Amino acid sequence: MFKIAIDAMGGDNAPEAIVAGVELARDRMPDTEFLLFGQLDKVKPFVKNDERLTLVQADEVIGMADEPVKSIRRKKQSSLVLAAQAVKDGTADAVFSAGNTGALLAAGIFIVGRIKGIDRPALMTALPAFDGPNEAFVMMDVGANAENRAAHLYQYGVLGSFYAHEILGYDAPRVGLLNNGGEEDKGDPMHKAAHQLLRYGSDKDLLNFVGNVEARYLLQGPADVVVADGFSGNAALKAIEGTALSMLKLLKATIMGGNLKTKLAGAMLKPALKGLQGKMDYSKHGGAVVIGVNAPVVKTHGSAGPDAVANTMQQIHAMLEANLVEKVQTFVTAHKDELAARPMSDVDATEK
Amino acid sequence: MFKIAIDAMGGDNAPEAIVAGVELARDRMPDTEFLLFGQLDKVKPFVKNDERLTLVQADEVIGMADEPVKSIRRKKQSSLVLAAQAVKDGTADAVFSAGNTGALLAAGIFIVGRIKGIDRPALMTALPAFDGPNEAFVMMDVGANAENRAAHLYQYGVLGSFYAHEILGYDAPRVGLLNNGGEEDKGDPMHKAAHQLLRYGSDKDLLNFVGNVEARYLLQGPADVVVADGFSGNAALKAIEGTALSMLKLLKATIMGGNLKTKLAGAMLKPALKGLQGKMDYSKHGGAVVIGVNAPVVKTHGSAGPDAVANTMQQIHAMLEANLVEKVQTFVTAHKDELAARPMSDVDATEK
Repeated sequence: MFKIAIDAMGGDNAPEAIVAGVELARDRMPDTEFLLFGQLDKVKPFVKNDERLTLVQADEVIGMADEPVKSIRRKKQSSLVLAAQAVKDGTADAVFSAGNTGALLAAGIFIVGRIKGIDRPALMTALPAFDGPNEAFVMMDVGANAENRAAHLYQYGVLGSFYAHEILGYDAPRVGLLNNGGEEDKGDPMHKAAHQLLRYGSDKDLLNFVGNVEARYLLQGPADVVVADGFSGNAALKAIEGTALSMLKLLKATIMGGNLKTKLAGAMLKPALKGLQGKMDYSKHGGAVVIGVNAPVVKTHGSAGPDAVANTMQQIHAMLEANLVEKVQTFVTAHKDELAARPMSDVDATEK
Repeated sequence: MFKIAIDAMGGDNAPEAIVAGVELARDRMPDTEFLLFGQLDKVKPFVKNDERLTLVQADEVIGMADEPVKSIRRKKQSSLVLAAQAVKDGTADAVFSAGNTGALLAAGIFIVGRIKGIDRPALMTALPAFDGPNEAFVMMDVGANAENRAAHLYQYGVLGSFYAHEILGYDAPRVGLLNNGGEEDKGDPMHKAAHQLLRYGSDKDLLNFVGNVEARYLLQGPADVVVADGFSGNAALKAIEGTALSMLKLLKATIMGGNLKTKLAGAMLKPALKGLQGKMDYSKHGGAVVIGVNAPVVKTHGSAGPDAVANTMQQIHAMLEANLVEKVQTFVTAHKDELAARPMSDVDATEK
């Protein structure tokens, strides 16, 4: 039996959508138990059937505006902290939340804990790849860190490769480095050093590095795993999201603001446009994963409805079934020298 | 008479499209002379009318793949270097190229020269703003620098404000800092320090700082001038471009791959879709400007046709007519203490 600890209070539609999503997932996953942490007077009314559902009282709630690190330190009785604590104590195998991303990240790092040998956990998300051999790629760090060292990015290459291989089923996932040019000497000293470390890891067969990728080509799928520093990875991800939203909005406004013929054409195109929107909707490729910690810690978007919650449970289930974290732990321990290595004498000097 | 020095050999359609665009511009701008630098056996056949056109032989050409700094140092007889040299020598007032962006940037910095008091010139581009009070905003640095200090970003705020006011006609342009969150304490130490310097400059009435802006909201137009470090500014710009292109491509593929009804609707929507494409096409807001150097140095995209070339000439003309560079020079000299100032004792320590 797998056990998933759920923050039932996080998200715009919590606890109703969370409970409904968990019940959907429970009916699909007969080998899984669910521990729901929340204010029981609010959670209980939504529970239809408590088979393999355990409700645990959590007096506090971490809000979307709460400062992440402070809130997990101060709100010890919050649904999120108790869910993470359950993993730490061995009562549960994974944590789920649709709430405050920063707080989930902090709970992952400080309560669930870093994998030994991994310096900086990252936030990883899947994005659609329109022209590559695979239909999605993962990118990290998309915002867990405001600053990164080259060694972090190198480790992300390993973490992301495991995820892409074990969960997405890709053979020898292609790892790319988000950089401001294709040539190996592009970027600031940190990115140049990261390029060299990834190349070294590739030479040692720890991962399959395909070189730098530029933000312009990301959605074409030049890599299955894109490693980035948290600052520019976040900027690229948000620029992609914002542009996609702006364009869909413009397209709708263009159609609705047009003449009768344009409106009619718009109505006829509706199913096709829905399809386009669906292709851009990367939440179908799963929630954001706090990668590099000792258990699956996964976030779905705040506005998630029951289906998105249930899909994220299946993503967590896949991570548990594949023993992803244990495999990473074993690998990192076995290769700790190569992963901590500074193979080029100049790498240390040029890291920022 | 204004005099614009033209690299006639740069760009995918050079020299034909460049010459044609210059002739269009010449016919629109009776107060301007054009110096065309290029291989005359290739340029001359395209000249229809040499009124206010001076052709100057340049034996060499800098290609798109040439390494920027090396190429401007080695190819002293290239069309680009000679055009920049004409500005340095006082023979021309501005430089135009549709060729190698990095080489134009290097020519701007090393030949035309930095404005005294400006530490690091930047590459600036205009982007559409869909929901703001103005229809476009400028963003810089979008890739001149792989690394920036906080003081550079502060100076970009001043440079961009001058451009937005003098050329785009905006009153008290709103300056925003591209950062990974809205709160003032977001970002790495460099971005936190830049935030403080921009706030200081705003308090001193040197610019109008409106705070951090996130990449997700850029196209909504939260600021008229967005300052960014060259690495993440480049990543955000390219992510926007790539997403817009991918979506337009997907939309076309969706329509063409659909059934008869979908195709018919697509045909009916064609003008509306052209309009959408036009809204995303930010080249209509002008070429990329090397800002912070002693003359207008402007780049249009490599695939520019005669119209785009002519439009960029008008942008250069506007910069010359407004005396933009002289105004910046005067302002920077008058405010050199505030612009070089490190008002907060911790800013120096936290800059990277």
